[in-house]
Amino acid sequence: MQMFDRFRENANIGELVVIQEGVVLGKNVSIGHHTAILGNTRIGDNVTIGSHCIIGVYPGGNANMRKTETTLPPLEIKSNVKIGNHVSIYTGTIISEEAFIGDQASIREKVRIGTNTVIGRGAMVELNTSIGSHCTIQTLAYVTADTTIEDHVFIGPCVSMSNDKYMGAKEFTLRGPYIKEGAKIGNNASLLPAIIIGRNTVVGAGAVVTKNVPDFETVVGNPARKVPDKNTL
Amino acid sequence: MQMFDRFRENANIGELVVIQEGVVLGKNVSIGHHTAILGNTRIGDNVTIGSHCIIGVYPGGNANMRKTETTLPPLEIKSNVKIGNHVSIYTGTIISEEAFIGDQASIREKVRIGTNTVIGRGAMVELNTSIGSHCTIQTLAYVTADTTIEDHVFIGPCVSMSNDKYMGAKEFTLRGPYIKEGAKIGNNASLLPAIIIGRNTVVGAGAVVTKNVPDFETVVGNPARKVPDKNTL
Amino acid sequence: MQMFDRFRENANIGELVVIQEGVVLGKNVSIGHHTAILGNTRIGDNVTIGSHCIIGVYPGGNANMRKTETTLPPLEIKSNVKIGNHVSIYTGTIISEEAFIGDQASIREKVRIGTNTVIGRGAMVELNTSIGSHCTIQTLAYVTADTTIEDHVFIGPCVSMSNDKYMGAKEFTLRGPYIKEGAKIGNNASLLPAIIIGRNTVVGAGAVVTKNVPDFETVVGNPARKVPDKNTL
Repeated sequence: MQMFDRFRENANIGELVVIQEGVVLGKNVSIGHHTAILGNTRIGDNVTIGSHCIIGVYPGGNANMRKTETTLPPLEIKSNVKIGNHVSIYTGTIISEEAFIGDQASIREKVRIGTNTVIGRGAMVELNTSIGSHCTIQTLAYVTADTTIEDHVFIGPCVSMSNDKYMGAKEFTLRGPYIKEGAKIGNNASLLPAIIIGRNTVVGAGAVVTKNVPDFETVVGNPARKVPDKNTL
Repeated sequence: MQMFDRFRENANIGELVVIQEGVVLGKNVSIGHHTAILGNTRIGDNVTIGSHCIIGVYPGGNANMRKTETTLPPLEIKSNVKIGNHVSIYTGTIISEEAFIGDQASIREKVRIGTNTVIGRGAMVELNTSIGSHCTIQTLAYVTADTTIEDHVFIGPCVSMSNDKYMGAKEFTLRGPYIKEGAKIGNNASLLPAIIIGRNTVVGAGAVVTKNVPDFETVVGNPARKVPDKNTL
Repeated sequence: MQMFDRFRENANIGELVVIQEGVVLGKNVSIGHHTAILGNTRIGDNVTIGSHCIIGVYPGGNANMRKTETTLPPLEIKSNVKIGNHVSIYTGTIISEEAFIGDQASIREKVRIGTNTVIGRGAMVELNTSIGSHCTIQTLAYVTADTTIEDHVFIGPCVSMSNDKYMGAKEFTLRGPYIKEGAKIGNNASLLPAIIIGRNTVVGAGAVVTKNVPDFETVVGNPARKVPDKNTL
């Protein structure tokens, strides 16, 4: 049932917590009330997890949805990670050291989150996606599946991405955006599938990016177009 | 209190689950940890419900909000439905067979979800709305109240709809969009109140749709305009 | 542990609820299943709180995020407030009388919500923000930190705001929008940092507001521009 008695000496565990058999907990872990940690989960030292989280979810789906491998590696939450409340994280994912995962964020299977990266409240990260180190993914941003985000990227609040060019109508290898180091995406911008966002680019708030953006360029508007150099965003 | 002992023989029930008196459970139901199922709920065979859900919510509100009938029919969750974690579903709603409801989705009262339809993670479906069969409502999409979505519709991630033309300033019969069979709405598009989106239309990512879209048309931009036939989205 | 026995006579408390020492509960309070109320919280008379809420959260963060004062005043939830399910509210915040907080809304520290205001489902309100009385903040709207919203404002669904002009690249005093009395912001509009939205303005759905909007003006488009008076939104 609630198998955490053996963790009591090392951990600060709230009320009505469920920790299933097979969970590995490091030293000095803190877990809020009503959180459930499922079996295939490894949690490092000094990790803080809030209340009402479900950690180590095994993916499901219906006949319309992508099949999942029958076996996934454990969820690994590295040392010094902080996780908020109402968070869900799937198995087969790695959350690197010092990352912060905000309230209501949801992170699917086979995701890698780099060190010191912030995932904002309510942000959704789909499967098969890599997010680098020192990134900020702001509140309510949507990172689609099959996406790559390099280091030091800023994704503003409510940014939206997609990975299916034909929205189910034709065959298309699903591919999300590829966002290079240091890019900054303004709030509520929309990125189309398989777009490449260059290094140190700036995408303006509300821009709709339908083509690749070269390194160091600033784009704004719908569809997004280059801003002349004198222009300030 | 936790009145599920009588369900134990047919169901796979997690820890710290609350099932109130009056709930009807089919065979082979699976329920995750910390989920609460309220009295006015009927759950079919082979239904899977995740952790931390609240199922069968009775609507409330304050003086600014629409009044609810004092009596609503039960919430009906038909056979083979799968429901994720942190989901809330209200009473007076029907979730049809084989539907999938993602994590953190919230579905209000008097909604009908058709067979085999997917409601993405964090998607919000307001009251008095009908969604057909074989639809995909992607992650973080917002389906406003008083909306009709026919069969085989694709609603991209972060799509936004509204149903109040004057935003509370004048009298207006609240009406959401009417989206016809086979329409595909790109990510982060905005739909205005009472708009009709025709059959097999395509609405581009980030488009702002202010007028009806005829059948088979493709529209993009802000405001959304027709794309010439040679144009590829 | 679950220290609510002393509240039983005045309150209607669900199953598996945690109420920590130091909580002050008024008369006739109703609390749903699986909710946790942390110590530094004062709840007025006739307050209703749904299921799976976490109330009175103390802010955390990582090295990339803004530091929080070490001491914050209590969370105050005034009389006749209604709070939905899966809600998180931080300490140091005031929710005024008759307000309604929808499911999955999350409200950070040092926020003030005025009387009779509605915060929609999944809406996120960041720290250090003031929202007036009789406002409607619709479903999935994002109210950034350091924002002021006066009375009788309507913020449509999925509206997005930002408060960091340079997205972390340069020094900038973080400042969200200032939205004056009676303004109406259409669904999925984007507001840039430090923008002033004048009294009784209308911002069209999907508009991207990059400059201040004078009182009584209507703006639409990307970037948002004034609509001639004859034009109807």
